[in-house]
Amino acid sequence: MGYENTDATRAHGRWAGKFEILPRCRLESMDDLKVAYTPGVADPCYAIYENPQEVYRLTRKANTVAIVTNGTAILGISAKGPEASIPVMEGKAILFKACGGVDAIPVPIRSTRTEDIVRTIKDISPMYGGIILEDIASPECFEVCRALEADGEFDIPIFHDDQQGTATVTYAALINALELTGRTLARCRIAILGAGAAGIAIARFLKHLGAEDVVLADRRGILSRDRVYEGKDREKKLAAGQTNPRNLSGPVDEALRGADVFIGVSGKDGLGRSEDEPQRVRQAQEKIRLMARGAVVFSMANPIPEIAPDAALAAGAAVAATGSSKFKNQVNNLLAFPGLFRGILDIRAGGVNYEMMAAAAEAIAACAGKATLDRIVPHPLAPQVAPAVARAVAEAGIRTGKARATPPLDKIEADCRAQIERIRECVRWMLDRYEVPV
Amino acid sequence: MGYENTDATRAHGRWAGKFEILPRCRLESMDDLKVAYTPGVADPCYAIYENPQEVYRLTRKANTVAIVTNGTAILGISAKGPEASIPVMEGKAILFKACGGVDAIPVPIRSTRTEDIVRTIKDISPMYGGIILEDIASPECFEVCRALEADGEFDIPIFHDDQQGTATVTYAALINALELTGRTLARCRIAILGAGAAGIAIARFLKHLGAEDVVLADRRGILSRDRVYEGKDREKKLAAGQTNPRNLSGPVDEALRGADVFIGVSGKDGLGRSEDEPQRVRQAQEKIRLMARGAVVFSMANPIPEIAPDAALAAGAAVAATGSSKFKNQVNNLLAFPGLFRGILDIRAGGVNYEMMAAAAEAIAACAGKATLDRIVPHPLAPQVAPAVARAVAEAGIRTGKARATPPLDKIEADCRAQIERIRECVRWMLDRYEVPV
Repeated sequence: MGYENTDATRAHGRWAGKFEILPRCRLESMDDLKVAYTPGVADPCYAIYENPQEVYRLTRKANTVAIVTNGTAILGISAKGPEASIPVMEGKAILFKACGGVDAIPVPIRSTRTEDIVRTIKDISPMYGGIILEDIASPECFEVCRALEADGEFDIPIFHDDQQGTATVTYAALINALELTGRTLARCRIAILGAGAAGIAIARFLKHLGAEDVVLADRRGILSRDRVYEGKDREKKLAAGQTNPRNLSGPVDEALRGADVFIGVSGKDGLGRSEDEPQRVRQAQEKIRLMARGAVVFSMANPIPEIAPDAALAAGAAVAATGSSKFKNQVNNLLAFPGLFRGILDIRAGGVNYEMMAAAAEAIAACAGKATLDRIVPHPLAPQVAPAVARAVAEAGIRTGKARATPPLDKIEADCRAQIERIRECVRWMLDRYEVPV
Repeated sequence: MGYENTDATRAHGRWAGKFEILPRCRLESMDDLKVAYTPGVADPCYAIYENPQEVYRLTRKANTVAIVTNGTAILGISAKGPEASIPVMEGKAILFKACGGVDAIPVPIRSTRTEDIVRTIKDISPMYGGIILEDIASPECFEVCRALEADGEFDIPIFHDDQQGTATVTYAALINALELTGRTLARCRIAILGAGAAGIAIARFLKHLGAEDVVLADRRGILSRDRVYEGKDREKKLAAGQTNPRNLSGPVDEALRGADVFIGVSGKDGLGRSEDEPQRVRQAQEKIRLMARGAVVFSMANPIPEIAPDAALAAGAAVAATGSSKFKNQVNNLLAFPGLFRGILDIRAGGVNYEMMAAAAEAIAACAGKATLDRIVPHPLAPQVAPAVARAVAEAGIRTGKARATPPLDKIEADCRAQIERIRECVRWMLDRYEVPV
């Protein structure tokens, strides 16, 4: 339906893939080959066999992550299968490299059942220092994380960006938004619309951080304990028991009434369902008017927010943010994942905990500089963010006993900065020299 | 046992991995991101969803292969597991890129059973234009190939370098060796020592090409039809029924007696088992003396050949080759796999057949120029080989109905040459600028 003729599709056709492999050593003579390949290569193989930890030092494992998806919840376009997910995964992969120096490899898989996804991830794990889950539908995404975290044989971190990444960057934005509106997390009422991976993960993270009144809602209304949940809604049932202290029920309106914070991670029609655009905006504004005065409105549905910032502000919000680059205050996961994983890899963390996520969020919030209502988060491409996040995550990981390596924090930050510089320079050089890649 | 202190291990420690990912597009502004990532990226996703073949045009799939191993038969060091295999896989990966422009990703897996390996490969296949099996023990390596070739859902080529790559390059060397010694494939007697992936695959390929008298042997002796085979030797049993027309039995000596060609793909003690080196050489020479006058001796055990070329020639051989770079006539898979897969990918072949392998071998043999007994194959790093092989493989694939795309052969050859130039230049630039990668 015309998707083949847009600027973006044409650009993808020119690129013929957004990543490529490059050798890191010379391969021009037989002497080069004797060291990098046979017969010399047998030595590092034996060294790893005799001391398995050497794999982190003698191979690319320590810097390489798999971006695993099954294409059941692709960014903005839902379940379209593993092949259709590749342009997103490639995009994520190169952002990992350009913004954090992390080598990320797209791994779109055909599995849809939790146990198959878990088995495949374990099977391919030897090459990777960490696993990023991406665009995998709920409840499988939660169950995969839980199964791998509980698996004694699986010793690398598993990170679901739609959960932990989104929760981290949402909290980063919230730190400054609450500060600017004179609120504290513990005492504000938070309504979250959208009870997929992001919504549930945000709710749990904010609860852990001290938020007491968090209410989740989906299209059918509030996740209350007395609602009937189908089998595939088992994660929602679990989340209902962990949130909603006033035991609200009914439409999302009931959660919004008097709420201090709205976090939308649903769809563009989450707050207003009219097909008529002005009517949809009015419906959404009516909902925002139910909230407390000077509320915080994060409408982060992608690619079109539940309510545009100007409409939210006109309806009484004090601060508004979205996930879109069209508006100020873009709450973009890109602020979190490159630096987060840079820090995770540098301390060879066995897992990611809330303390590391919170440290990342605080570093992001601090990078906004003197925050204003129009600038509660830094620009998504601000180069100082990832090094600061990497440092903060590493510090928190070491402090909470998650680290298996403890390089100096200054070195982590400086190396991250140097990597970003190096990659940028290499890409510029290659693109200048070969405008259209051969 | 000292493996951690060799030049090769130290070099691997400096490299910290031999490959890395590089972006192929600019990521410096939000405008860049809107095309390469959200929201623009949804367009190519939809385009692929609506027309699955577009994945070849809009992603890196068409140029990307997985190098899958389980570490059960690692080059020269046998079964040491997936982690210990990584230095070899990384080496192979960068050779694919440097010599053929192919993006190859190491995929060391934990599976050891045929059905698990097959399942994992199918599961991860969406990202790849082809699968390279590497260093997987027999009989699983044969069974995995057979299962995937027979699988109607699996539509990308599967290639086992230890089988098809070794068979291709062995035949390439044999073309010139037979020519120079006045023999024809159909009428010579061929003894193959080593009945793993390489030996069995070479035997079958040479049979297909018209060789009538091929005899396989392993440590226990000749693969005869009346020998008793254990379960794990099921592929040997199959091969015994396909070879050995005179129904020989007994030690390898019986196969060597009067043979025109010896192909060794066993171990350094395949022809002589004495622990005393001079004694081992004499034992091997005695075996070579059993052969026909002016025989062809390919002792390709890695890293140390069954018999060194000078010893073979002293024992009466007319031409000698090994797998080692220490001697002339190095029969190195590197002559085959980059160009072979370049051609396979360029015609989007669904599989690899004997005609494509034979075409590759003939192209390699032709690249030796005016062959002499000291130069039956080109130098492994000769830059003209891969483009010529790619062209020949593509031509054969198109001719035999394996092609799903038919770019002009001149373009295939020229693009391959340009890729090799580009990669070499990029790697040089990066290494000059960042001698020690950050």
